[in-house]
Amino acid sequence: MKVSLKILLLLMVVQSFGQNADSIQIRTIYDFNLSNSSCHSNLKSLCKDIGHRLSGSQSAQLAVEWAELLMQNTNLDTVYLQSLMVPHWVRGDVGLVYWKNKKGTVFQTSCTALGGSVGTNGVVEGDIIEINSWEQLEEYGKEKITGKIVFFNRPMNPTYISTFMAYGNCVDQRHQGASRAVEYGAIGVIVRSMTLRMDKNPHTGSMGYNDSTRKIPAAAISTKDAHELSKAIKKGEFKQLSMELSCKQLEDTISYNVIGEIFGSEFKDEVILVGGHLDSWDIGEGAHDDGAGVVQSLQVLETFKKLNISPKRTLRCVMYMNEENGNRGGIHYADMVKKSGEFHLFALESDRGGFSPRGFSIDGTPLQLNYLRGFEKLFSPYQLHIFDKGYSGVDIGPLNDGEICLVGLVPDSQRYFDFHHAPSDIFENVNKRELELGASAITSMVYLVDKYGLPESKTIKK
Amino acid sequence: MKVSLKILLLLMVVQSFGQNADSIQIRTIYDFNLSNSSCHSNLKSLCKDIGHRLSGSQSAQLAVEWAELLMQNTNLDTVYLQSLMVPHWVRGDVGLVYWKNKKGTVFQTSCTALGGSVGTNGVVEGDIIEINSWEQLEEYGKEKITGKIVFFNRPMNPTYISTFMAYGNCVDQRHQGASRAVEYGAIGVIVRSMTLRMDKNPHTGSMGYNDSTRKIPAAAISTKDAHELSKAIKKGEFKQLSMELSCKQLEDTISYNVIGEIFGSEFKDEVILVGGHLDSWDIGEGAHDDGAGVVQSLQVLETFKKLNISPKRTLRCVMYMNEENGNRGGIHYADMVKKSGEFHLFALESDRGGFSPRGFSIDGTPLQLNYLRGFEKLFSPYQLHIFDKGYSGVDIGPLNDGEICLVGLVPDSQRYFDFHHAPSDIFENVNKRELELGASAITSMVYLVDKYGLPESKTIKK
Repeated sequence: MKVSLKILLLLMVVQSFGQNADSIQIRTIYDFNLSNSSCHSNLKSLCKDIGHRLSGSQSAQLAVEWAELLMQNTNLDTVYLQSLMVPHWVRGDVGLVYWKNKKGTVFQTSCTALGGSVGTNGVVEGDIIEINSWEQLEEYGKEKITGKIVFFNRPMNPTYISTFMAYGNCVDQRHQGASRAVEYGAIGVIVRSMTLRMDKNPHTGSMGYNDSTRKIPAAAISTKDAHELSKAIKKGEFKQLSMELSCKQLEDTISYNVIGEIFGSEFKDEVILVGGHLDSWDIGEGAHDDGAGVVQSLQVLETFKKLNISPKRTLRCVMYMNEENGNRGGIHYADMVKKSGEFHLFALESDRGGFSPRGFSIDGTPLQLNYLRGFEKLFSPYQLHIFDKGYSGVDIGPLNDGEICLVGLVPDSQRYFDFHHAPSDIFENVNKRELELGASAITSMVYLVDKYGLPESKTIKK
Repeated sequence: MKVSLKILLLLMVVQSFGQNADSIQIRTIYDFNLSNSSCHSNLKSLCKDIGHRLSGSQSAQLAVEWAELLMQNTNLDTVYLQSLMVPHWVRGDVGLVYWKNKKGTVFQTSCTALGGSVGTNGVVEGDIIEINSWEQLEEYGKEKITGKIVFFNRPMNPTYISTFMAYGNCVDQRHQGASRAVEYGAIGVIVRSMTLRMDKNPHTGSMGYNDSTRKIPAAAISTKDAHELSKAIKKGEFKQLSMELSCKQLEDTISYNVIGEIFGSEFKDEVILVGGHLDSWDIGEGAHDDGAGVVQSLQVLETFKKLNISPKRTLRCVMYMNEENGNRGGIHYADMVKKSGEFHLFALESDRGGFSPRGFSIDGTPLQLNYLRGFEKLFSPYQLHIFDKGYSGVDIGPLNDGEICLVGLVPDSQRYFDFHHAPSDIFENVNKRELELGASAITSMVYLVDKYGLPESKTIKK
């Protein structure tokens, strides 16, 4: 423990003395964000003027230019790009999964190639086999699977209260389905979409291959279609399933993290980072994932400017590139920090959708966790109540050096996977107030950390 | 204080001994409701097979029959109707508010007559005057207002965190606008819709007249139209505003509260009530208001049945009639209780929409409040955190006798007024999981109160 208990107690006292002033300042932050913030109109512009923006695409490049211009118009002290190479996967024009019943009637699904999948190079056609667990895959083995298309149909478990838990316990099918099925001789993979809703929206997302094995095509179908397909298989109505995907991986290409700062008035060399990711999947508009996070992050800096709050430390907004299929932006950023030796006190990510905020997930030392919990009562008038040890975010994750405190905004998770990676992740499905409340929560947290510092960082300066 | 501290402490000890068993039971309740409950499909049926259901309408009668049949199919111990007379207001075919600019171009608004308004008996036409506070109304006085249509355009305050606070501080315009404006000689009233969204949906709701003054027609226009109208007035683009409403009040008619019970195994004469209101406004489908509440309330009893939990006390689900424009169901029910001397231990209402539950609003004695707060940690795994003193609900309100403990389910309020009393309050805008989580929260609370009783009631029996 680098900070003595005495220092910590002293900080706590200062903190409680400051609470009245702090509660007034936080009230002012919320009032401003709920009345006059730009985050909702910025999100509209990102979703409607740019649209979806997968790494390497032309629209991702437009999004970079959009973000740079927006930061410039926010009158930050500096705005710059950080260049990096990103994967460039393209979906192409064709994405079909269909089957015929015994009468020859064709059932066309709502489907989407998984991000990173190879194309089918024509049509891949074969008998289908439904798999509901890894054990079942092994049990069926090569004998039953060779030459077939594997249909992974394990649903997300609805009894988890956090839908992220349900996702985390199910998404292995999407990530590893192709690489594991191919070992048993599969020729293609169909995955049930990762959502708790029963609807016709297919949900994409990343998948990977082992270097050593063959690459087979993989697509997701909607939950309703997965239900129909499973029924048809069980009834034996079924002949063969066909896949036609024209997706392919192109050469890596250049792209950028977009960064803007307000310089610290006292400790300019200490960075407080707030961010989200600018890239999105290539369907929908990337509104919740993660348009919401980037406009909320910029709102933090805009609100400081508009309310004339001069931060002691340097506030840096980072709009990361390539979270969805590579995290090259997050990794590159952390590498640059390591090389430069630049000191980061704190990093906060918003990447769980623009829903009603419930609190924060804190990836820090026990002392840092307890310290931030000391702020909890300042947030209770705003109905924030989660101050738990937990994961922060994909983009800021690589910054973890055991000293920096990483935090994720935790919004209500119930509707997140209704929209996640789906055509329905559009601007209209983000509620203005919920978005603004999230921006207010992270602005307030950044305000407090800037004002009071953090224990077990290299410095504690108030 | 009727219960000694000693007894209370004893209860608390029992309660903490019971917590492991209770947390398992509550987990089971949530698991069942999130996997196999009927509330979402019941809501679909109510919204799509019946639709909106204003007191006195044919569809309200169909809703009563629907509810009775549904309760019978839930295999309750008894199902019965409680008859009462309800107001019968009808909108009629015509609802128009429009104005012309100087060039003669007509601007037609999205409007809705307010519930209870008289019709215009042809066209009411007059100059318009915008009013943003009661002080302004008085300041302008008879001189400026006589012969005009008053446009109440004070918006809901977006800086309240609870949107119910914003509503509560704004809805006086809708309730009292006509009765107060007529005293200054107004001939009609237009009210900005009670919502924080800027959109084209008009929101209806109840309004009233003074017996002693003339009744003038009143309608709400959408927030976007209110914005446009205000702009047109300020620019002086404006000639006259016209209203045509064919609504009228008919004779009171018979309707019913619909009631179903599971008899208590030990204390059959002690009632635990859970309810919401079956009636809705006559636009949209009354999905959040209050289809959600009635299907959640019935879910409590269904879940007890399906999980073979035999309640000690009698669980009674009440689907009230006429909350929206008279509260006759709630008043009549409480009258019947008073007459019969039937003992009610506890009543819980769900009438704030089918959104993610955040906790409970408790209208009881300080001892009861503290007692229920003792359950808080059982709910924290389900992200319920509000256990505050506060208002319960309109329907159960008349039961208040200073002894009964009344509780309202508190869901997240951010989106409630997006849909409230508007054409957008339809089934599709209720999220299945959020609805089920609300049902789980109230089922769990009812389970605990049934098991442990409550202090300061006439009896405490465990």
